[in-house]
Amino acid sequence: MARIVMKFGGTSMAGLERIRAAAERVKREAEAGNEVAVVVSAMAGETDRLVNFCREAAPLHDSSEYDVVVSSGEQVTAGLLAIVLQSMGLQARSWLGWQMPLHTSPTHAAARIRGMATERVVESMQAGVIATIPGFQGLAETGRVTTLGRGGSDTSAVAVAAALKADRCDIYTDVDGVYTTDPRIVPRARKLEKITFEEMLELASVGAKVLQTRSVELAMKEKVKLRVLSSFRDAPGTDIVSEEEIGHLMEDQLITGIAYSRDEAEVTLTRVADKPGAVAAIFKPLAKHEVNVDMIIQNIADAEGRTDVTFTIARSEIPRVMEMLAAAREEIGYENLSYDDKVSKLSVVGVGMKSHTGVASTMFSALGERGINIASISTSEIKISVLIAEEYIELAVRVLHSAYGLDSPDVDETA
Amino acid sequence: MARIVMKFGGTSMAGLERIRAAAERVKREAEAGNEVAVVVSAMAGETDRLVNFCREAAPLHDSSEYDVVVSSGEQVTAGLLAIVLQSMGLQARSWLGWQMPLHTSPTHAAARIRGMATERVVESMQAGVIATIPGFQGLAETGRVTTLGRGGSDTSAVAVAAALKADRCDIYTDVDGVYTTDPRIVPRARKLEKITFEEMLELASVGAKVLQTRSVELAMKEKVKLRVLSSFRDAPGTDIVSEEEIGHLMEDQLITGIAYSRDEAEVTLTRVADKPGAVAAIFKPLAKHEVNVDMIIQNIADAEGRTDVTFTIARSEIPRVMEMLAAAREEIGYENLSYDDKVSKLSVVGVGMKSHTGVASTMFSALGERGINIASISTSEIKISVLIAEEYIELAVRVLHSAYGLDSPDVDETA
Repeated sequence: MARIVMKFGGTSMAGLERIRAAAERVKREAEAGNEVAVVVSAMAGETDRLVNFCREAAPLHDSSEYDVVVSSGEQVTAGLLAIVLQSMGLQARSWLGWQMPLHTSPTHAAARIRGMATERVVESMQAGVIATIPGFQGLAETGRVTTLGRGGSDTSAVAVAAALKADRCDIYTDVDGVYTTDPRIVPRARKLEKITFEEMLELASVGAKVLQTRSVELAMKEKVKLRVLSSFRDAPGTDIVSEEEIGHLMEDQLITGIAYSRDEAEVTLTRVADKPGAVAAIFKPLAKHEVNVDMIIQNIADAEGRTDVTFTIARSEIPRVMEMLAAAREEIGYENLSYDDKVSKLSVVGVGMKSHTGVASTMFSALGERGINIASISTSEIKISVLIAEEYIELAVRVLHSAYGLDSPDVDETA
Repeated sequence: MARIVMKFGGTSMAGLERIRAAAERVKREAEAGNEVAVVVSAMAGETDRLVNFCREAAPLHDSSEYDVVVSSGEQVTAGLLAIVLQSMGLQARSWLGWQMPLHTSPTHAAARIRGMATERVVESMQAGVIATIPGFQGLAETGRVTTLGRGGSDTSAVAVAAALKADRCDIYTDVDGVYTTDPRIVPRARKLEKITFEEMLELASVGAKVLQTRSVELAMKEKVKLRVLSSFRDAPGTDIVSEEEIGHLMEDQLITGIAYSRDEAEVTLTRVADKPGAVAAIFKPLAKHEVNVDMIIQNIADAEGRTDVTFTIARSEIPRVMEMLAAAREEIGYENLSYDDKVSKLSVVGVGMKSHTGVASTMFSALGERGINIASISTSEIKISVLIAEEYIELAVRVLHSAYGLDSPDVDETA
């Protein structure tokens, strides 16, 4: 017997037929003798509907009232799931954020989870009652409803799993696991049996949107065993575990996955003075306006003590960033300002690269052989990212997938 | 400066444009220096949508989870109204049922209000913050969400007004007041300036569905000054007050209003033994199956000690009632069982009739002159109801409206 948390996303809650399908999965776990808590999202589209109501009510609205409005979507699905479970002969009851309560910071619309009172929920679960819990919502010390920010239900599920000391947290979603890369680009992409938290974070932050990044960070911190699996198909999912747990798998596998992001733009400032304060002058206005800067590349200074600085941002930020940097020209002291918004980012990720050499050179030669030019390079312990021209991105993903031996030997290409 | 409770129904909350119109009315009261609490219904159609989800989830569903689901509709409008009020430069915040809390019995889906904790709400209102309160919902001692039954938001508004010791409770709705009768049948129907609680109850129970009956009962008990007025037009509404307050108006006015109900059926059992237990045997099975019996007429027994018993029920109940009574024939001991489902009920209501004679005879002769036959008669202190053939109902309403001098002298018939 185990204690497990199951989480179902919006597509798995979109209408009663899907809620019943989810309930069947819950039933199977409960009848196997497990204590089960189920964290649910709102029906697909419902949160958008509610957010739009708030925007229509006032473009700049009080986020504490926004939370009152948008948290109602998960309240509905938590109640409905309890009803459906009962109709299948199981005991179930809903626990709203304020009822448990799930404590959060008072930062409305973007609250952080602080903890959860578990005594009553655990007592109820031990008596055989399945707990259905609306994701995304909590209670601040002020006594007011909070929400965790979009996609917050994954984070709720992990927080509930941590608080309940659950044996695992199963995230049911519309994909059936984490793949070596996007199967729409590479039909021979393989589903991973296991992946480390760190790899998952790197893959998520470069565009593999299976799990919310915060939920992975929290699972890593709280040592919650995460599993991603399909709501719609019976298939083993992907376990997201610590590096220790993944153990021997690492030996065989250098690279775990390849991620890409099309939505990039590269900004270059030439002949910036290589002195303290100059680079800070570039990024201070960006930080002030909450522009997310990703890669930063600075060359060694030339004989005159000047250097080129290149960085990447989301493509949509180009107009306002160019304006900010043009305005700060005096202060920064650069010669030329330019951008390229036809670039994409390609990343290879794997804890295996910590103990292996040659990962980068495989990447560079595989891309070079196909005539794909690398504009910038940035590396972390378990990731190498490069910027390339946007038009080559699909080709580059396929080339690297083969180069690192990730291709599935026997994929059904019609699947 | 007064303290007032305003209540807006579902049609007044149907979309942001209407919520803004409601907010304008709230603003006017607040800017006149009043302390204002606003009780809201869900958007028109929303509660039906949520109820249908529950039915689809399971025909027989746990009413405590039903309450979790359906109470979300009012949560949304309470939040949105607060946002809209803020956007108009007013201070506002929502108070959910569990936040105040508004205490109810634990009878889910049909909870009774027990009281309300007012300290924090009053403090906030005194600081100039408009309270927006979702109607229909409360909190049981069990810590779970309750709802008051359909139409419960009127009752919430009255309960909030009573708890806050409000100077009055204004119910904004899609009609602009209480009329002497249905204006669709009698274009010369007049809007009443005042009506007593008792009259309102009699009119409501015979089909003038302006206010939920429970809300009028509660207002009468708690001495809350009620007013019904239009959400959509600026026009004086109708005050619903105690008999003492209405005072001199009574002198002029014998009859306050004429109500009708088409949806009636009359059941007759002939030659029932006139002995203790016989009549009880008729109504016991009906009560057990929660059939609502309205008028009951029993004649004086004949020489053999036998009597005819006639009663009325809602037309839709005929099939099962006939079945019940046929099954109980032995026990009751009647000769013949028959029904007429082509009857309608007509009622004249007025506290004036307490102190005046001739009200009934005016009714009988006015109907008789038009050849309208009266099947049954039942009276209370302030009401006379008769059953007539359904086809005469519009004619009968018009005839009585004139006979009692209720016709408006100068109505705009195109309005």
